[in-house]
Amino acid sequence: MRTLFEPHHDEIRLTAVFHALSDPVRLDIVRKLLVAADISCATLCADMPKSTRSYHFRVLRESGVTRTFIEGAHHRVVIRCDDLNSRFPGMLDALGRASEPV
Amino acid sequence: MRTLFEPHHDEIRLTAVFHALSDPVRLDIVRKLLVAADISCATLCADMPKSTRSYHFRVLRESGVTRTFIEGAHHRVVIRCDDLNSRFPGMLDALGRASEPV
Repeated sequence: MRTLFEPHHDEIRLTAVFHALSDPVRLDIVRKLLVAADISCATLCADMPKSTRSYHFRVLRESGVTRTFIEGAHHRVVIRCDDLNSRFPGMLDALGRASEPV
Repeated sequence: MRTLFEPHHDEIRLTAVFHALSDPVRLDIVRKLLVAADISCATLCADMPKSTRSYHFRVLRESGVTRTFIEGAHHRVVIRCDDLNSRFPGMLDALGRASEPV
């Protein structure tokens, strides 16, 4: 099992995280991951062209919001909760509490 | 005294708020406002061309992050704390706690 490139904990920038979350598709992915915890990319966006899905997961990963594990032909993605809670305490909790529907 | 257009409380979208905060200039403005509470637009961005300053304040206002009051020739801007805390509880607190330097 290997992981794709992601920024180090200290390199995660708040502006990059906000940019990643400013798109409705990516925000939807993140909020689903906050509930589901661990799920495959294909399952998360089953109705989306693969290229579009890859783009959104790349933005999330390169901003430091998610970590992607490659397991054979499958990509599995998780929220970097520890890193985000350490860098920006309360941000993920606030995201989970937001009253706006997904 | 009058205010410029801003979205109603129920129209504030999380993606628009995140977009507004995804720019380093605007994030800097918001974090200064969280401390200063009430300050003129000109004072906040004294070293910036007026057109650039106006653009950033418009994005912040139209996303629902700030409210702009017009007092004669001066624009005064405040964070919409009550609306944001109601729509997205904990988001402003998390922003204030973020360890990233301004």
